Amino acid sequence: MQKINPRTLSGFMELLPKDQLKFNYIYDAIRNTYEQFGFLPLDTPIIEASEVLLAKAGGETEKQVYQIKKGDNELTLRFDLTVPLAKYVAKNYGELSFPFRRYQIGKVYRGERAQKGRFREFYQCDIDIIGDGELSIVNDAEIPNIIYNVFKNIGLSDFVIKINNRKLLNGFFDYLNLKEKSSDIMRIIDKIEKIGTEKVIEELKEYDVNNENIDKIIEFINIKGLNENIISDLKKLNIDNELFNTGLEELEKVLKYAYNFGMNNDVLEIDLRISRGLDYYTGTVYETFLREHKSIGSICSGGRYDNLAEFYTDKKLPGVGISIGLTRLFDQLMELNILEDEQIKVSDMLIIPMTDNYDYIISCYNELVKENKKVQIFYEKRSIKSIINYANNLNIPYVIFIGDDEVNTNKITIKNIKTFEQKTDTLENILKEQ
Amino acid sequence: MQKINPRTLSGFMELLPKDQLKFNYIYDAIRNTYEQFGFLPLDTPIIEASEVLLAKAGGETEKQVYQIKKGDNELTLRFDLTVPLAKYVAKNYGELSFPFRRYQIGKVYRGERAQKGRFREFYQCDIDIIGDGELSIVNDAEIPNIIYNVFKNIGLSDFVIKINNRKLLNGFFDYLNLKEKSSDIMRIIDKIEKIGTEKVIEELKEYDVNNENIDKIIEFINIKGLNENIISDLKKLNIDNELFNTGLEELEKVLKYAYNFGMNNDVLEIDLRISRGLDYYTGTVYETFLREHKSIGSICSGGRYDNLAEFYTDKKLPGVGISIGLTRLFDQLMELNILEDEQIKVSDMLIIPMTDNYDYIISCYNELVKENKKVQIFYEKRSIKSIINYANNLNIPYVIFIGDDEVNTNKITIKNIKTFEQKTDTLENILKEQ
Repeated sequence: MQKINPRTLSGFMELLPKDQLKFNYIYDAIRNTYEQFGFLPLDTPIIEASEVLLAKAGGETEKQVYQIKKGDNELTLRFDLTVPLAKYVAKNYGELSFPFRRYQIGKVYRGERAQKGRFREFYQCDIDIIGDGELSIVNDAEIPNIIYNVFKNIGLSDFVIKINNRKLLNGFFDYLNLKEKSSDIMRIIDKIEKIGTEKVIEELKEYDVNNENIDKIIEFINIKGLNENIISDLKKLNIDNELFNTGLEELEKVLKYAYNFGMNNDVLEIDLRISRGLDYYTGTVYETFLREHKSIGSICSGGRYDNLAEFYTDKKLPGVGISIGLTRLFDQLMELNILEDEQIKVSDMLIIPMTDNYDYIISCYNELVKENKKVQIFYEKRSIKSIINYANNLNIPYVIFIGDDEVNTNKITIKNIKTFEQKTDTLENILKEQ
Repeated sequence: MQKINPRTLSGFMELLPKDQLKFNYIYDAIRNTYEQFGFLPLDTPIIEASEVLLAKAGGETEKQVYQIKKGDNELTLRFDLTVPLAKYVAKNYGELSFPFRRYQIGKVYRGERAQKGRFREFYQCDIDIIGDGELSIVNDAEIPNIIYNVFKNIGLSDFVIKINNRKLLNGFFDYLNLKEKSSDIMRIIDKIEKIGTEKVIEELKEYDVNNENIDKIIEFINIKGLNENIISDLKKLNIDNELFNTGLEELEKVLKYAYNFGMNNDVLEIDLRISRGLDYYTGTVYETFLREHKSIGSICSGGRYDNLAEFYTDKKLPGVGISIGLTRLFDQLMELNILEDEQIKVSDMLIIPMTDNYDYIISCYNELVKENKKVQIFYEKRSIKSIINYANNLNIPYVIFIGDDEVNTNKITIKNIKTFEQKTDTLENILKEQ
């Protein structure tokens, strides 16, 4: 028979079991943290009507989406979890309790040009807090604490959460009479870490920002130091612009409350260069970096927005949320080799039958299971060496031999496959020592 | 602005948070049980090359799949988890440890005609044990124990696992000189619960099975009673057919070992009518029914197959596995109203600020979190009634009031929202009583 090449599409992550276990460890850490903070689970379809999903999309997004024609229906695979959330909240408005705190972890699809580190199918892990009409600024201060706990629970330590406020930036550009260019300027300065100051100046010139203003912008985004100092430096600018001052007030409050939640200058840093590009955001914005690996970019981003679902409903639904691109993050953590092996094991023990007396073997198995041990029996006839190999590959720390001697004496033989320590005793005694 | 109707496609399940929590409870019970039994996680892409996914498919399947054209690529959404497993094992053969015990829980897609209880996007929860060249029959005996534990952990009790062996059936039909009609006969008798004996006889006649053979078939599938009695009745038939006798031997062994694993006549029943339709299965077959709700059909099915991946590789890969159609199962359990509400709560406590002193409020929050309480703060300005409503909707059992009195006396006020019991004390004392 002609065989078909069992290939997996490029841009689609498919892991070997050992790596999948690591992936799931991170997945679970994120999920459990989101749940710990009281977020409700949501699971929306991967396929939606194109007209619903692309209500707001334009240009790049439309080009990248996967579309399906099924009969007369124009369908699209979701490209993020925010648009489905907007649809869901608009659709179920009357049934939800606000503020609606929801998390969703799921696959999304973007048909980008395949390249290293870019995925066409990838997990997003989102939380959002959606208010009905309004949403307290204290929510914005709780978010860094959640980000902090997520990454701590994943096992990462050396990360920093950067924070800024779009009102502050928009107000500042308005004050410089650059209101209409505000979006473009933010998009440009957002790239400064990647492209450098010279290139930023060049690009600003291309947008007809005059030299005086360029100087002021560069000076502004170079305000650095401890958060408290940045706040007082910003106040000293004495900028007479309402939006700017609202932004400054918000930033100050978010910082104060975030400190109450346990944040400090080490993990939470004001960075006036952060703007998150998207016009969608209207207040607080967040990005998260690994201090030692800044090159991999932000590993968790988000912010405050004024109106989640304006394409579907007249209700005003302000929100604040963050998203982790898990597939890319995992790929990069693997590359950096900063995930540990040992903690993940699929079973505690592997029983190796040296006899066909399954009555006794399975009765031992049942006893161990009753004591909450995760046990497997290796039923196949193989060499001991290849069975030990199997246990090693699956990080199973103990093997248990049961042969005729053990059956006759009502004992088992247990062996630690790392230390080669071995002992024969009754199951009861062995359990006592485990 | 013209609003777009925020609809969800029919045939796609999208739950309200309360129901999603119940769904996740079942999802987790299945996943945890699969892991308890030492199955490795697998997560294959939802999109595969059409040529890979449809290697084996024909007729109905091809008509139902969702296909995507993206540039020159013909892509298909997976319609089950078995074909991706076959691809995966063939692709990664050299990297896997056999027997390869894997579970996968994920969404699959079938563009069936939408009707009540039928879903176009649904979760399958599969386990399979794949052998390299051969696979011991004891594996077949472990499966009912896993099924039993899954449903026990979901919280169901009154279910029965039905078991049969295709070799037994094929051997019997061969013995009656009906070998070529074997598949059709199995397909027909598999429906007997639904269509009744008369209709089965009628259909068998349409396939030119003569009256004598029809009598023998009906007599055969009516062999009932305790498992031991069925086995001895089958032996008494003295059928001189090798396949039949291999099947009988297998069935007897599976039963014996399954009893060792703790199964008995109450939960595991031989049923000679069960054949699982698909030619794919070659030995043991399983179906699972809720005794009080047989009408909903099998809630977990599977069986033994000779060769998993013949379309991709020359390696012989026998296996045994089961699948739970979670979305349909959940839908039906909800309909029957047999899932409990109370056990699922998103948080333990909701703090209701009656003051703006967030220093004190958040410090209380931090203390509670440190004691592993799942706590939320309700930051928005709302009436107490509407906040209590929020807690009720989310099954949060306690609310904590913090006003100026509490701040000044360094206390909190806690209220059980079911019993209305309320008390004011230091946080330390209240934690002691929780």
